[in-house]
Amino acid sequence: MSEFRREHDFLGEKEIPNEVYYGIQTSRALDNFNITGIPISKEPLFIQAFGYVKKAAAMANRDCGVISPQVAEAICKACDRLIAGEFLDQFVTDMIQGGAGTSVNMNVNEVIANVALEILGHPKGTYKIVSPNDHVNFSQSTNDAYPTAFRLALYRKIDNFIASLEALQQSFGQKGEEFKDVLKMGRTQLQDAVPMTLGAEFHGFSTTIKEDIQRLNEAKMLICEINMGATAIGTSINAPEGYPQIVTNHIKDITGIPVVLAEDLIEATCDTGAYVQISGVLKRSAIKISKICNDLRLLSSGPRAGINEINLPRMQPGSSIMPGKVNPVIPEVVNQTAYYVIGSDVTITMAAEAGQLQLNVMEPVIAFSLFSSLTYLENACYTLKEKCIDGITANEEICKYMVMNSIGIVTSLNPIIGYEASASIAKEALQTGKSIHDITVLERKLITQEKWEEIFSIENLIHPKFINT
Amino acid sequence: MSEFRREHDFLGEKEIPNEVYYGIQTSRALDNFNITGIPISKEPLFIQAFGYVKKAAAMANRDCGVISPQVAEAICKACDRLIAGEFLDQFVTDMIQGGAGTSVNMNVNEVIANVALEILGHPKGTYKIVSPNDHVNFSQSTNDAYPTAFRLALYRKIDNFIASLEALQQSFGQKGEEFKDVLKMGRTQLQDAVPMTLGAEFHGFSTTIKEDIQRLNEAKMLICEINMGATAIGTSINAPEGYPQIVTNHIKDITGIPVVLAEDLIEATCDTGAYVQISGVLKRSAIKISKICNDLRLLSSGPRAGINEINLPRMQPGSSIMPGKVNPVIPEVVNQTAYYVIGSDVTITMAAEAGQLQLNVMEPVIAFSLFSSLTYLENACYTLKEKCIDGITANEEICKYMVMNSIGIVTSLNPIIGYEASASIAKEALQTGKSIHDITVLERKLITQEKWEEIFSIENLIHPKFINT
Amino acid sequence: MSEFRREHDFLGEKEIPNEVYYGIQTSRALDNFNITGIPISKEPLFIQAFGYVKKAAAMANRDCGVISPQVAEAICKACDRLIAGEFLDQFVTDMIQGGAGTSVNMNVNEVIANVALEILGHPKGTYKIVSPNDHVNFSQSTNDAYPTAFRLALYRKIDNFIASLEALQQSFGQKGEEFKDVLKMGRTQLQDAVPMTLGAEFHGFSTTIKEDIQRLNEAKMLICEINMGATAIGTSINAPEGYPQIVTNHIKDITGIPVVLAEDLIEATCDTGAYVQISGVLKRSAIKISKICNDLRLLSSGPRAGINEINLPRMQPGSSIMPGKVNPVIPEVVNQTAYYVIGSDVTITMAAEAGQLQLNVMEPVIAFSLFSSLTYLENACYTLKEKCIDGITANEEICKYMVMNSIGIVTSLNPIIGYEASASIAKEALQTGKSIHDITVLERKLITQEKWEEIFSIENLIHPKFINT
Amino acid sequence: MSEFRREHDFLGEKEIPNEVYYGIQTSRALDNFNITGIPISKEPLFIQAFGYVKKAAAMANRDCGVISPQVAEAICKACDRLIAGEFLDQFVTDMIQGGAGTSVNMNVNEVIANVALEILGHPKGTYKIVSPNDHVNFSQSTNDAYPTAFRLALYRKIDNFIASLEALQQSFGQKGEEFKDVLKMGRTQLQDAVPMTLGAEFHGFSTTIKEDIQRLNEAKMLICEINMGATAIGTSINAPEGYPQIVTNHIKDITGIPVVLAEDLIEATCDTGAYVQISGVLKRSAIKISKICNDLRLLSSGPRAGINEINLPRMQPGSSIMPGKVNPVIPEVVNQTAYYVIGSDVTITMAAEAGQLQLNVMEPVIAFSLFSSLTYLENACYTLKEKCIDGITANEEICKYMVMNSIGIVTSLNPIIGYEASASIAKEALQTGKSIHDITVLERKLITQEKWEEIFSIENLIHPKFINT
Repeated sequence: MSEFRREHDFLGEKEIPNEVYYGIQTSRALDNFNITGIPISKEPLFIQAFGYVKKAAAMANRDCGVISPQVAEAICKACDRLIAGEFLDQFVTDMIQGGAGTSVNMNVNEVIANVALEILGHPKGTYKIVSPNDHVNFSQSTNDAYPTAFRLALYRKIDNFIASLEALQQSFGQKGEEFKDVLKMGRTQLQDAVPMTLGAEFHGFSTTIKEDIQRLNEAKMLICEINMGATAIGTSINAPEGYPQIVTNHIKDITGIPVVLAEDLIEATCDTGAYVQISGVLKRSAIKISKICNDLRLLSSGPRAGINEINLPRMQPGSSIMPGKVNPVIPEVVNQTAYYVIGSDVTITMAAEAGQLQLNVMEPVIAFSLFSSLTYLENACYTLKEKCIDGITANEEICKYMVMNSIGIVTSLNPIIGYEASASIAKEALQTGKSIHDITVLERKLITQEKWEEIFSIENLIHPKFINT
Repeated sequence: MSEFRREHDFLGEKEIPNEVYYGIQTSRALDNFNITGIPISKEPLFIQAFGYVKKAAAMANRDCGVISPQVAEAICKACDRLIAGEFLDQFVTDMIQGGAGTSVNMNVNEVIANVALEILGHPKGTYKIVSPNDHVNFSQSTNDAYPTAFRLALYRKIDNFIASLEALQQSFGQKGEEFKDVLKMGRTQLQDAVPMTLGAEFHGFSTTIKEDIQRLNEAKMLICEINMGATAIGTSINAPEGYPQIVTNHIKDITGIPVVLAEDLIEATCDTGAYVQISGVLKRSAIKISKICNDLRLLSSGPRAGINEINLPRMQPGSSIMPGKVNPVIPEVVNQTAYYVIGSDVTITMAAEAGQLQLNVMEPVIAFSLFSSLTYLENACYTLKEKCIDGITANEEICKYMVMNSIGIVTSLNPIIGYEASASIAKEALQTGKSIHDITVLERKLITQEKWEEIFSIENLIHPKFINT
Repeated sequence: MSEFRREHDFLGEKEIPNEVYYGIQTSRALDNFNITGIPISKEPLFIQAFGYVKKAAAMANRDCGVISPQVAEAICKACDRLIAGEFLDQFVTDMIQGGAGTSVNMNVNEVIANVALEILGHPKGTYKIVSPNDHVNFSQSTNDAYPTAFRLALYRKIDNFIASLEALQQSFGQKGEEFKDVLKMGRTQLQDAVPMTLGAEFHGFSTTIKEDIQRLNEAKMLICEINMGATAIGTSINAPEGYPQIVTNHIKDITGIPVVLAEDLIEATCDTGAYVQISGVLKRSAIKISKICNDLRLLSSGPRAGINEINLPRMQPGSSIMPGKVNPVIPEVVNQTAYYVIGSDVTITMAAEAGQLQLNVMEPVIAFSLFSSLTYLENACYTLKEKCIDGITANEEICKYMVMNSIGIVTSLNPIIGYEASASIAKEALQTGKSIHDITVLERKLITQEKWEEIFSIENLIHPKFINT
Repeated sequence: MSEFRREHDFLGEKEIPNEVYYGIQTSRALDNFNITGIPISKEPLFIQAFGYVKKAAAMANRDCGVISPQVAEAICKACDRLIAGEFLDQFVTDMIQGGAGTSVNMNVNEVIANVALEILGHPKGTYKIVSPNDHVNFSQSTNDAYPTAFRLALYRKIDNFIASLEALQQSFGQKGEEFKDVLKMGRTQLQDAVPMTLGAEFHGFSTTIKEDIQRLNEAKMLICEINMGATAIGTSINAPEGYPQIVTNHIKDITGIPVVLAEDLIEATCDTGAYVQISGVLKRSAIKISKICNDLRLLSSGPRAGINEINLPRMQPGSSIMPGKVNPVIPEVVNQTAYYVIGSDVTITMAAEAGQLQLNVMEPVIAFSLFSSLTYLENACYTLKEKCIDGITANEEICKYMVMNSIGIVTSLNPIIGYEASASIAKEALQTGKSIHDITVLERKLITQEKWEEIFSIENLIHPKFINT
């Protein structure tokens, strides 16, 4: 037996190695697109999602009577094997390609056709029996099959990312509880402000992540709108009557994802709004997580010439030259991941804006960007939780000392002696080095020692009550 | 009477022109911040929103018994005049300032205090009676008053923007109806694809804008969460018991905006998530509107050496050298506005990420960016509707000719003769210049003339039915 | 006399108020473009630059014999008055417009024509004698006149920006000298590293700004390439023989700016590379200045619960609620300006990428973005210098204490006792709170007291010499 | 023999598989950083560059007498093997890591130490003899070794990218020559403008790429400034006298890259200006290449319902549903690559701005972004040249027909009959469908037939001469 089979398309013929399941169009894609060196197989959920789409399409085509039950069954079986993770190495198309996803769709069509042929006992390439175009892709176009698979994969990936955010949120929540009695100085604009607790600070981190989870769950629903049956441009050309709704129902049943058919298929086929929205929400998460990491690095700065309120777990020697130095490497790697995600949002923005007329041809780079942003940020969240947040400890004495030594506590005197008198005390304290207490109680005798103790009890510093004259 | 009054703060004294209502801190802001030359008065809804906030605070302070009813009433009256649009010229602080909005808040506090003093019959600057800090700003900090006013202003501006989108959407919808029988070639990847109607294309524009309106309405709700009573950092230091909820209720009553008090005031005081989300959704709108404008420019390209399917209204001579040339100037200006909005999103992203610890000090540039993006894009939408979409006409004959002359119609033969045979016909047509009809019916006799007419009736081209062998 | 004159163009007639110098096409621009509300007159250097361009064109047209000396002279005189800053209020076109600058060019052509007519004693609008198109714009197109004026204006604005950078650089340099003996802790990754001087830190700021000045001077040369005489698309259609070089020479003579004629006029007419490059270099400056401001805010954090190595000038009360608080408002406003510039770079990027075929129609938003970025950043640099850097003082004792109290000084022992032994000492110091000295000299006796004093002399800490065993 | 060896650092001990050349710190990096899944070995030029740096350092340390000739020689030999591409699989650290490159530097130090030990006949891990820190990293810190290696790698990668641009430029140049007599319509703002040649259009593409090559060559020189000998923060702590210049000279000799030692090592150690500049120039290239690809897609649009002036090589079937459709997949993939590069520039911007105090800790994500942008864009340029530009053909007849059928040719009449008369002719032509010739010569008799033929000769349309009355 020859090592190659000959396949042809309307541009000509090519030799295809006999052992591969993909065919001539994938082979052309391999020739044409050598940009990132990263094949689509790096995103197994994408391949799996195509398994779902092609299976549902085969079922709907069978239901509509436009392909035979035998062929449909073989295609379904082949899809099941893709869904199970088999044949991953057959998905060789570069992550960034031209053609609006046609090469990815044909890579899938060809592999499924040849697996189905194998199941039916036919040699690869006997496309008269099971054809990539006329059977596997029947009633479909790249322009509906590709975005639908993309959306299913995104749905799963967003769920995975949400899980990582939930783990992170819980970790922050636990630290919020653990540090709830640690009195510390609050800071605005990097200047000493008024007291708070370290617990409240970490609880705030938990709250902010919780809100992102809500936003992601909302954004996730937007990608449940699919356009199966739109075929080439949304006119449903070449799709049998009723097919769009039938195939949508099959996808919903097979995946459990609450997909719905878009009302305006013309619009849905060229619209990238949902991707832009998801990228925007992802960016929002990245911004917030990055802000938290900036805070963690500030609060753990030092140990002697910085703020040093908290200790991050010591993960690795921090310097090839400075002995004993340990750096906040985990927040640092998370910051950098956030910057990656933020940059990707710009890539997605440009790609979305560049869509012309009935299709956005730039979807592959949108997929590449969203997939990598979601993967990297999910990894970063787990890394942050496990290798940093869970192990943070507080330097309680330092925290408390900075409060008691501060000028900012003068704010508590405001409602009693007024802003202006308080400002004057603060100014004297700053210039002379004297304490707020001494100036207020001993020198200026503005309040009694008793009142002072009421106002500046730890309890009142942590949970300030309004104390008027 | 002197032309100046002397005011002081804890940094010293300054002469303030007697006729101005702002005081020393605004005067310092004028000295310190000369960046854009654009004063905050350029955003009247922002000043109005501060009127609401300060009025509600005065009412809540009165309710809590921490300022006298007389002072509260004078402040309320002063606020009413701000709300009505008076004293706009007193808001002189530069749009971009340091201090996290303190200068804006103090500009407001000072103007209100002096207006209240005037109402009470006292000279400006007699702050013992009504003080910018100890009365107008009582129970508040910049860190709650400023973002709350910002959010109220955003709410109104988003509503205004939505109104412009609705007008645009209706215009597209009407054109969708008007052009519903205009057969034209659909294009994917700028290559001829399959037929559609011009009406469906414009209806798609309408749909896509409608979805943006939904997203904006969702995002608008996020900014209804306010942090009044959080004061400096969210611990409610110096706010009387119960004040946060009371002031929130007053704001809701006065404005009719469904504001709610944030659950975690520490988090709310430093969080910029809602701004990032709004900017993301604005960017999404900008991307879509820009894509539509790109399409309009393509479809009206020519008139002789382009696509020329539609005519845009002729708004102005298009060239200082080429006589008779008219350009698509309205879509062009809208594209550019969209790029401005997209750039602003990056500004907002960086500002949001740069927030440190208990406050985001970069909020002023976020406000500047969101305000200008909303204003410009609202203007652009009305411009697009009124000066372009409403007057678009179709070149029906050209549209139809391009369909009938196309190779893309071969796609309709796919379900009958298969993808491969269709491709072969298409190839021959391209190489020889022959028509699809002649090759299919006359030469290869693959279908009858009768079948041909069924498939390629105008009705079937507009609303393709699945026609099998 | 009527209050209006009637003007017409090929689209029809309009009434133009008699007192204005602009004409019908400007009037149409006023109707069509209401986006930013900011007229082009806000950029006087841009109007001045157009004065230069139109004057040079009139001279070249006269030289080529295609307009009469009388008309040329009148146009030149009118241009001189524009160059002198007269008639600024006549430049009413919105900063963002469609038409690739045609409205701006025609606004200029019309004002100059009417001023020339006035000089010649004719009423406004008698365009048979001096026509905006057939005389003022002769041998030109918007597509060469507009970018040329834009470039001349950019050149001047870059020079102004460079002057602000030079002022800032010198201020940093002086502080570098002033603080050259202030020993302080260097920090990497916010963790204590090894000693340095505060002077070296400020000298570094000076160096980094100096490099940006070099980059700006390089980028400035790129915009000296102009395309006068290219007319519509670079084929020089309708320009007399020799005109391109003649007009270029005149511009060079009049302005003193070393402009050169582009070799490939087709390319030059659609290329925006120089703008992108300048925006990139501006962004680079913004990034660096922002980084410096971040550092200044960190180093001045506190005063009690932060790093507190330096004091920034106290510019204004920092809080409406926290008495005595003073914030780093100047660096803060500079940071925000930098974010504006960075966002503008994305706007410019999208506009540049959107250029199609023989012209980039998005130049107006590029001009708007570059002009505002240059203005704002220039303002920010002077603000930073005058209101912050010049007045910075050092807290020498605090700086020195943090060095001597640090663990990081153990690095100096590395070459003598090796990295591993040093790390072990550091670890013990961190865990026990002991000093590096005590562990090294007294307990472990790894070096003598004499050697210790040699290594840790102030002189050696400031200018470390390599000291081996 | 055990499968593991035990290594320790100051944080504790770990088991290291005996077969690997890296040690405990790399092993910690593997545990800590799982973000992208892409190891640094994917960038062989980066590893090679580290080989150069470490070899030069060993030579300089030997020259300065701080490590023995034997150890230096072993290190050099080990470096030579790295330079030759050996041991690539030992570089396992994730592309995005915290620690400012420390893990990468230690990965290199450990592999070199163990290879050197093997060369000397010692087992791996016997670091008393050759130590990663005390020998391989001697007189260095991550903070000088890492950026220096990064810069050397960048230099080589930029050269590779320039080579791809040169190939592309030549291809455009050849097409410029090939199409120099193809008359076609020039278009501004997508509207028919005036005639030009297809050759001039392609020549313009060549010119624009040539300018980018110049910019890249300039930017390349900026990264030749290195900071070897700066060690931790630029004070040269622990580096022997004279070492910085000696090691710089060695690097220059070994690599042939014209590196120079930075004058201000403090500044050089934290500055990322050169990376920002390179990214800016790369973005500029990406913008221009993307603009060209947009043009190619427009000019080849159709084939029947588009512009169809040129034919791109047919690379693959364009649709899974539309037979015979071929899409411009190569320009499309290049556009997407450009968007990736543009997004990366934002990532780099944020990372550069986030640098604090004496070091920019975000350099790894800068490296990751620049490396991938350079690789992808280089691939894209070769792809564009080989699979698209080289095979482009012109549809001469169509090009010429559109010129002769156009209204835009009226512009040539401007200097003879004036702008206004020309505009009137253009208007009549548009409204009536008549030709410019008939209206001008036959009906209005504005010029003679003879004059018409002079003006509208092919020669004059291609190279317009100024023809006056």
